[in-house]
Amino acid sequence: MSGFPEIETLSDTESLVHYGQDWTRFWTPSPAKVVFPRSTEEVVALVKWARSNKARLVPSGGRTGLSGGAVAAAAEIVVSMDRMRTLVELDSVEPSLTAEAGMSIGEVQRLAAEAGLYYPVDWAAADSSQVGGSIATNAGGIRVLRYGMTRQWVRGLEVVDGRGEVLRLNRGLVKNNAGPDLSQLLIGSEGTLGIITQASLALTRPPPEQSVLLLAFADLAAIMPAFTALRRALGLSAFEFFDRRSVEQVAAHADQTFPLDPQAPYFGLVEFDNPGGERESDALAVFEQLVEDAMVSDGVLSQSAAQAAELWRWREAISEAITPRTPYKNDLSVRVSKVPGFLAALDDLVGRHYPDFEVVWFGHIGDGNLHMNILRPPKMDVGDFRTACDGLSPRVFDLVRSHGGSISAEHGVGLLKRDYLHYCRSPAEIEALRGLKALFDPDGVLNPGKLLA
Amino acid sequence: MSGFPEIETLSDTESLVHYGQDWTRFWTPSPAKVVFPRSTEEVVALVKWARSNKARLVPSGGRTGLSGGAVAAAAEIVVSMDRMRTLVELDSVEPSLTAEAGMSIGEVQRLAAEAGLYYPVDWAAADSSQVGGSIATNAGGIRVLRYGMTRQWVRGLEVVDGRGEVLRLNRGLVKNNAGPDLSQLLIGSEGTLGIITQASLALTRPPPEQSVLLLAFADLAAIMPAFTALRRALGLSAFEFFDRRSVEQVAAHADQTFPLDPQAPYFGLVEFDNPGGERESDALAVFEQLVEDAMVSDGVLSQSAAQAAELWRWREAISEAITPRTPYKNDLSVRVSKVPGFLAALDDLVGRHYPDFEVVWFGHIGDGNLHMNILRPPKMDVGDFRTACDGLSPRVFDLVRSHGGSISAEHGVGLLKRDYLHYCRSPAEIEALRGLKALFDPDGVLNPGKLLA
Repeated sequence: MSGFPEIETLSDTESLVHYGQDWTRFWTPSPAKVVFPRSTEEVVALVKWARSNKARLVPSGGRTGLSGGAVAAAAEIVVSMDRMRTLVELDSVEPSLTAEAGMSIGEVQRLAAEAGLYYPVDWAAADSSQVGGSIATNAGGIRVLRYGMTRQWVRGLEVVDGRGEVLRLNRGLVKNNAGPDLSQLLIGSEGTLGIITQASLALTRPPPEQSVLLLAFADLAAIMPAFTALRRALGLSAFEFFDRRSVEQVAAHADQTFPLDPQAPYFGLVEFDNPGGERESDALAVFEQLVEDAMVSDGVLSQSAAQAAELWRWREAISEAITPRTPYKNDLSVRVSKVPGFLAALDDLVGRHYPDFEVVWFGHIGDGNLHMNILRPPKMDVGDFRTACDGLSPRVFDLVRSHGGSISAEHGVGLLKRDYLHYCRSPAEIEALRGLKALFDPDGVLNPGKLLA
Repeated sequence: MSGFPEIETLSDTESLVHYGQDWTRFWTPSPAKVVFPRSTEEVVALVKWARSNKARLVPSGGRTGLSGGAVAAAAEIVVSMDRMRTLVELDSVEPSLTAEAGMSIGEVQRLAAEAGLYYPVDWAAADSSQVGGSIATNAGGIRVLRYGMTRQWVRGLEVVDGRGEVLRLNRGLVKNNAGPDLSQLLIGSEGTLGIITQASLALTRPPPEQSVLLLAFADLAAIMPAFTALRRALGLSAFEFFDRRSVEQVAAHADQTFPLDPQAPYFGLVEFDNPGGERESDALAVFEQLVEDAMVSDGVLSQSAAQAAELWRWREAISEAITPRTPYKNDLSVRVSKVPGFLAALDDLVGRHYPDFEVVWFGHIGDGNLHMNILRPPKMDVGDFRTACDGLSPRVFDLVRSHGGSISAEHGVGLLKRDYLHYCRSPAEIEALRGLKALFDPDGVLNPGKLLA
């Protein structure tokens, strides 16, 4: 290990545990050490050293991932971006923001807001997650319906690839057709092709005042027609759904009362532009029509921003509420029109083969994205639980395949889904992905074992 | 050539000329023949045959390109998509449209409109250009400011790569993070990595009624502040600019009178949502402020959809009007905030070194995209003209490089810009591009000599 670059390093047990894991809890963190580069040059030195010494690096952002993509459980060196959080430029003409990879998404949102602008990519962990990690995982979140995934907001990347080359990709340009855009390849590559050191993100104007409509659906079949009717009538910046069990889980942790009949099987949270309350009558009209058509049984419309935030809590708090049950997460997607059939088939599958499993359903159903969370029975050991869930996964993924879907809509592949990749990528695609890995990381120093075995 | 697959073939001189060229006129078309596959299987058979026989294929759409990307001037086999134009599916829930690669963009727009939907990617050649070609070139056009490039609308691709493998990429999913999205690599690859045979495109709801404001700018320095003020006040779905020479060229071919003082140095065309005329007073207010600030000297606001279309003609007809002058096109981009300095530097460069050249400027300035069209002096031979322009190009591209821009904002690299790629892509990037080519087209059968030498 001679010649290791002079970079701030931690190797105490607490740091190793803290930096060796993400939000999954299936692996025991055990990195060799944690390093904190302060510049792109230090990252280059690290990668070159790793190539010469056959060492393995795990790029590390806010570690809020849910697929083990940032886990270091095999004596790897964790490369934390915590010391690279500087704002490089905020350009209010374009508008865009350029920052080092370690800046948090919450900070990006705040800096944008201070300039009268808006970074629309958002999720519950915004203050912990980082720019680099959000790009490496092409993070989605709660406003994909209107604003798309992280990919849509990336205007430029500085990356140190596995060759140790610094690539400055697209450099903030809105239009650039000078050959294939390599930044697109790094987005969603989960740290396996390069370490993102800096990024330019597009900003936009803040949306008008939003209102939230919380609905109780009569049954599963009502959800998609209701979505179509609501989108047609109101636009919609978000359309989230969750089931009765989600409400039960949040209610057990919350000090507020669920405002609808909690016995309804499914609920929907609808967000839409409503400046000065001008769309309220449209919202009430479509709501009344849905009630008349027996698709919706109950509903409440927010009367203030504070109330809207309260209603959002019922959706946003689900992940946190179920964490003590070590949920086995399946983050699935199919084409939007196939959601009802897919959801029914999954529900039937679990009911028949795993009647003892409690499953919590929620998701961004307007994007075709369903989160299926299997809760660990309180008395079951985590290892046994994981084994049982692993037994179910091939059946779930068979359904994903037969519905033309994806085994990971937004969480990524990481360690958790790696061995199931072939359920949604063909052998020719996987061969191409291996070729890309060999091209950008010929010695396999970057996040080995993630995404591809 | 034994074993050539049984596919409709033409090899008469007229067809060879017709299918051997795009809208550029710098190369003499001379393909060996033109083939018209009717299915993905026929494309696979062609690619496999080409690999075995060391033959070269030029994928061919509507051939409306402006960089020689679809030119066959060296006895290649042109693979025309003209017989693959079928609509596969129009899904009005998602909403999306899936079509074979040969469908025209105009047809996509019409089919969307018939379903009450909208495909927003648009340009003057929409009825000639094809789905596959628009994706292979990541085409831009006149509504990038609001709707982005073609990339943003691609939901899935079926591609036959240079290995002869059929890749079905992303398959229409809105959210899919199961590893890097290879469809992103095919977008803008100019037929060098694969032949696109089918695509799924996202659709959206039609925009509200639009109005057009045509403005005369006092000088170059006024354009960006005016853009910022107009965007802030009105939103904007398009912001196009053109210079006095553009107006002169269109006027010489038009039978309508330019509605503003044609002696102003620069003009802007501003399009914005104006349902029921409700934004008219906002538009007039910002116009009056711009006049008061001496940035704008004259203007006209459309009073009907027909008038708006007439005003658009002054922008859209420029390319057609200058065609007889065999323009040498430079399609450049820089970051939006750098446009004024870049434009001034370019203007100075041409004025100093090439005072005899007439340059027509227009562009999508809100995207940082400038079209610099050098007109061939009427008596100069096309070959001599090209040589003179080639002499200017390194100076232009030096300025592009020093302003951090791109040598091709939207037209692509093709043959025309191939030897200049290093002005905006680093050696490490070009090495990666070569690696991608070797990975997806190991025998170099697809569009050889385009994009990379």
